[in-house]
Amino acid sequence: MTFGIYYSDYLQLDKILNAQELESEKNGNVAHDEMLFIVTHQAYELWFKQVLYELAAVINVFKDPVIEDKKMGQVIHHLSRIKSIQRVLIQQIDIIETMTPLDFMEFRDLLVPASGFQSVQFKQIEIQLGIKREHRINADKEFFHSRLSASDYQALEELEGQKSLLELTDSWLGRMPFLKFNEFRFWEAYDQAVNKMLDSDSEIIRGNPTLSEREKEFQLNGLEMSRAQFESLLDREKFEELRKAGEFRLSHEGFLAALFINLYRDEPMLYTPFRYLTLLLDIDEMFTNWRQRHAMMVQRMLGAKIGTGGSSGHNYLNATTRQNRAFLDLFKLSTFLIPREDRPVLPDELRRGLGFFFHGENH
Amino acid sequence: MTFGIYYSDYLQLDKILNAQELESEKNGNVAHDEMLFIVTHQAYELWFKQVLYELAAVINVFKDPVIEDKKMGQVIHHLSRIKSIQRVLIQQIDIIETMTPLDFMEFRDLLVPASGFQSVQFKQIEIQLGIKREHRINADKEFFHSRLSASDYQALEELEGQKSLLELTDSWLGRMPFLKFNEFRFWEAYDQAVNKMLDSDSEIIRGNPTLSEREKEFQLNGLEMSRAQFESLLDREKFEELRKAGEFRLSHEGFLAALFINLYRDEPMLYTPFRYLTLLLDIDEMFTNWRQRHAMMVQRMLGAKIGTGGSSGHNYLNATTRQNRAFLDLFKLSTFLIPREDRPVLPDELRRGLGFFFHGENH
Amino acid sequence: MTFGIYYSDYLQLDKILNAQELESEKNGNVAHDEMLFIVTHQAYELWFKQVLYELAAVINVFKDPVIEDKKMGQVIHHLSRIKSIQRVLIQQIDIIETMTPLDFMEFRDLLVPASGFQSVQFKQIEIQLGIKREHRINADKEFFHSRLSASDYQALEELEGQKSLLELTDSWLGRMPFLKFNEFRFWEAYDQAVNKMLDSDSEIIRGNPTLSEREKEFQLNGLEMSRAQFESLLDREKFEELRKAGEFRLSHEGFLAALFINLYRDEPMLYTPFRYLTLLLDIDEMFTNWRQRHAMMVQRMLGAKIGTGGSSGHNYLNATTRQNRAFLDLFKLSTFLIPREDRPVLPDELRRGLGFFFHGENH
Amino acid sequence: MTFGIYYSDYLQLDKILNAQELESEKNGNVAHDEMLFIVTHQAYELWFKQVLYELAAVINVFKDPVIEDKKMGQVIHHLSRIKSIQRVLIQQIDIIETMTPLDFMEFRDLLVPASGFQSVQFKQIEIQLGIKREHRINADKEFFHSRLSASDYQALEELEGQKSLLELTDSWLGRMPFLKFNEFRFWEAYDQAVNKMLDSDSEIIRGNPTLSEREKEFQLNGLEMSRAQFESLLDREKFEELRKAGEFRLSHEGFLAALFINLYRDEPMLYTPFRYLTLLLDIDEMFTNWRQRHAMMVQRMLGAKIGTGGSSGHNYLNATTRQNRAFLDLFKLSTFLIPREDRPVLPDELRRGLGFFFHGENH
Repeated sequence: MTFGIYYSDYLQLDKILNAQELESEKNGNVAHDEMLFIVTHQAYELWFKQVLYELAAVINVFKDPVIEDKKMGQVIHHLSRIKSIQRVLIQQIDIIETMTPLDFMEFRDLLVPASGFQSVQFKQIEIQLGIKREHRINADKEFFHSRLSASDYQALEELEGQKSLLELTDSWLGRMPFLKFNEFRFWEAYDQAVNKMLDSDSEIIRGNPTLSEREKEFQLNGLEMSRAQFESLLDREKFEELRKAGEFRLSHEGFLAALFINLYRDEPMLYTPFRYLTLLLDIDEMFTNWRQRHAMMVQRMLGAKIGTGGSSGHNYLNATTRQNRAFLDLFKLSTFLIPREDRPVLPDELRRGLGFFFHGENH
Repeated sequence: MTFGIYYSDYLQLDKILNAQELESEKNGNVAHDEMLFIVTHQAYELWFKQVLYELAAVINVFKDPVIEDKKMGQVIHHLSRIKSIQRVLIQQIDIIETMTPLDFMEFRDLLVPASGFQSVQFKQIEIQLGIKREHRINADKEFFHSRLSASDYQALEELEGQKSLLELTDSWLGRMPFLKFNEFRFWEAYDQAVNKMLDSDSEIIRGNPTLSEREKEFQLNGLEMSRAQFESLLDREKFEELRKAGEFRLSHEGFLAALFINLYRDEPMLYTPFRYLTLLLDIDEMFTNWRQRHAMMVQRMLGAKIGTGGSSGHNYLNATTRQNRAFLDLFKLSTFLIPREDRPVLPDELRRGLGFFFHGENH
Repeated sequence: MTFGIYYSDYLQLDKILNAQELESEKNGNVAHDEMLFIVTHQAYELWFKQVLYELAAVINVFKDPVIEDKKMGQVIHHLSRIKSIQRVLIQQIDIIETMTPLDFMEFRDLLVPASGFQSVQFKQIEIQLGIKREHRINADKEFFHSRLSASDYQALEELEGQKSLLELTDSWLGRMPFLKFNEFRFWEAYDQAVNKMLDSDSEIIRGNPTLSEREKEFQLNGLEMSRAQFESLLDREKFEELRKAGEFRLSHEGFLAALFINLYRDEPMLYTPFRYLTLLLDIDEMFTNWRQRHAMMVQRMLGAKIGTGGSSGHNYLNATTRQNRAFLDLFKLSTFLIPREDRPVLPDELRRGLGFFFHGENH
Repeated sequence: MTFGIYYSDYLQLDKILNAQELESEKNGNVAHDEMLFIVTHQAYELWFKQVLYELAAVINVFKDPVIEDKKMGQVIHHLSRIKSIQRVLIQQIDIIETMTPLDFMEFRDLLVPASGFQSVQFKQIEIQLGIKREHRINADKEFFHSRLSASDYQALEELEGQKSLLELTDSWLGRMPFLKFNEFRFWEAYDQAVNKMLDSDSEIIRGNPTLSEREKEFQLNGLEMSRAQFESLLDREKFEELRKAGEFRLSHEGFLAALFINLYRDEPMLYTPFRYLTLLLDIDEMFTNWRQRHAMMVQRMLGAKIGTGGSSGHNYLNATTRQNRAFLDLFKLSTFLIPREDRPVLPDELRRGLGFFFHGENH
């Protein structure tokens, strides 16, 4: 036990609460809303620090080639916390939107060319999640060179060379041991199940007296497109081609393992991996939502003007909502799910392996 | 006073709580999550009804060629309530997202071809706000013909012929009496102020020793683009051309009046109109945000599959986030604001006219 | 596949959207805000129906004397959904608060004596969670007799006789097999750990030169109170006395098992039970938060007036925030936690038993 | 225009992001969650700074004995921003609740006796709103002496001597010029209206054949209590007695003016004052809601243990939710409202005075 700790010393409030200097004040004419502008961005940066802290803990676990089961509980915990923080990041946009465009004009020009674009911590979050230079929109690719200080640039360059959570997750998925269990070859069984399902759907369409020929053709076409999608999923070479074209980022093994986990998530041993994948997807969705809100806020604030950093503002931000996404593959899994009842039945021995060993009477 | 009203009778809970019939149950195999699907959509429709109710009250006020001042307070009240409801509409997406894609598959096919696309109330909200057929994305334009029942189609067609809130607001703005006050011609003064501001900016750029020639050219270019934007704002003919091209929906008078209100919102008489315009903008933003969340939820649920109504799901919804917007003009006002200190000074007589008559000692 | 389902038929919108009859309209003078009042309450009842539906699924699992591991994933899912719904229930209060007291007065008297107090579904939720008659505040105990219709009263009476989720959870906890594992007697080890920790704290306090005698005495007193708390936890008879006094609702076995789960939650087999208990606690917290917001809203709306049902409004509701809680025991667990490093080390064999059987290379 | 501002310099991120030192790290054993604990509290303090900044701007306006109408718009703006910030303050509790009690135990003892109790900024907010020493719960009254550093104590003492927003608002309300307008004496007319309303209610009760004698007596009793409440409102001496007993904080003039504003808020000149009073009430409600969430979080984290500052935690915080409220008077206004149709009709001349002077054709 330590004695004598004082609240404001512990939190270093002398730093935190004395870090707001208004450019408009230096310029001789305080713009009331500049304080809000500074404080809001500082609150963002504080939370970004916390997100990076949780992310580092997760990456640390996944760097290990063998992940202890008990660590997965902690991973879930870290990611859930990130999600909680993201809710606040989004909510904070409501605060910044209490600033009107006219109020923003009173100090906006004084900040040129500083820009949220230069938030190193936010770039670090993106890179560590899995958004690396090659995935970025063009405006973003260039930023490394022209807009950052040398040391900030260097910090990001180093991160680019390290494995992202996406890559580490891919490796972990690729190591899943379940899918070739003794004689059972899961994906062959899956292929059969898919074809059986599609054949049955096709038959139903053909035999439906309420459909016009044109409608039938339309629906049968849809089925064939579906069949083609499944084929490129289950054929490694076709998948690799699509991957090279940027359609997927996970490896073939990784993507299939993620699909398996989603299909059989009720098995006790797969439940935590399922939760893990769902949280990655949630985090991607929430950052996208935050980007969308941010883009809208900029449209509201600037109309067709350009942003403080000279970027085209609203359009730039809108483009990032579509492209700067780390876990888009996980959204694509849904394309390849089949209904529960059509799934291949797992061999008993495998199913027992996915359960708990210690069966007390109440489990 | 009436006696004997009973809670569940008053709320007609016999109807509300007996309106959930699961298709999956009829089909012999209850899909647990279908209940959630139904209840969530019903909650949406209840709130849509309330939004329409508030919207009708607002439109009713604006139909009147002379709006009593005291009615504007009620209008603000109705619109603030809509905004409150929108927060819940957005929050409800978190609930529907507790349904996993695998769970959705258990009953999705049973609902074909029903689709949220067929929510007549939502279309009514859109039309009444100001999104009419000509503004819609193509997929939406067609829906009137092929996907709605005759009576639903008819209901929407009738609304198309009535004045939307956008149109009524435009007329109201166009009637603003302030802008040609005796000898004072506001927009001439504004034009001069804009040019003075741009000239000064230009001089600063030219004289800045830290800028390279290339950078100077780039920034001066930006200024000239700005000047061109202002010119097409203040020149009625140029504005009308842009309007025909779909760049603006408000009339020239309406747009200018809205700009004036935003510039001089601190004058007591303009404060409520400013609040009114800001609420329209908020409502547009929140519906856009809701559409974005909705689009993302569909991506998550279906991946690259097509939606229950046969629409292309995620892509369709994404397109509506960009185009189906009623008050985009109000976002564009920011392009034409100038800093407070550069604004033309209003003649004293006009300023007094924008204040209150009854000056007690504490005002 | 079924064809021809229409959105508004599927959702029975003819019922949902025609279930709003304003008493003020019947009375000849439409009060605009009565629509909001009705719609909001109907939205609440829709969500209550969904909560009951999820709760029934959970209770159904827990009625089984042996719970399959894979069902626990589903239970987590149902409870998380309830939590999502609760967020909306709370958010909806912002909507109702857009009604001003003056607007409420325009129809309030017409509703006497109907009251939210008469929401049978809400009482059903409470009872099924574990708030039975003996736990309620007095005003609530009486309601069964005087304020409900005979059939509503009957429905609640039957539920009172059935096992609540609290009771079923208690039985499930009591069946936990881990705590007397071969020769290892966990609670004896825990008792020793607690005493060691308290002795060490006591020594630190006595030896601290910066503390005055008075301060030392104060802190040592605190330690002794702590020791007494732990003693009544570990001594079955003392615990039972406190339980009879209403301090606890869980049985001694149940409470201790819940504590064990919280202490060793990182063990894979305990992680899901830990999540389950945390969700029960979250749900209790969120209903309490909802009650608090509700009480505040009533204070705002009625001041010191009495509520529509003749209840004392704010005071009544405030009392329920303190007493009508199902899982207060789970909040009390924190009192009895000791730091991770002071916990008894579990025997290897037991720890292995709490892990997974199938150890592939990546786990 | 200034050139060369860099994002991280402008935001002083070297201070903000280097102000987190973990006591657990100094102690040799990093507790992962201590970072969250620090960052969350720092985010709170940043927002408290912003709240104080907005509050200072409001107080500055109200210190002026004559408030320009145009300043009221700005006041509304500042208060709305505070409300937006409060939403985030409440949302942040969800983040801190991702810390489990067991994780908190890993560093809690190291922080003794630091406590959120020592947040000087939060006390400043309370005092400036109007919660002064005499209104606080006992535990709070004492804190000034024993728990704060000399300089922090001094800062708060000085604030205690200054006029709070509650006091300034009371003076402003007391200066309202409307209520004795020529020969019209509003409160006499109000008194008559109240009595007429109560007499009519009484008659209806007596003549209602469906009521038992006992029920009639009960309801008539209620009416008489109501009549007594109105009497103590309209009689200055009775009001002052209640005020001395702590029932009201506003002066008699202030309270009556606030009631008048709520009754006739639709008059253009009263609409902004009505919005102002409603925002004060909202802010009070949201801080109370924050306190309630905080109290619950502490109960969850500590059970029956005492808080880091030695305070009794949950119980202390719960008491502050009831007593530390600045604008409780505004909640009590509802007690004294009468339905719109029963209100005294205002003399024409007065009503014109409450409208706008400049009546263009569209108003």
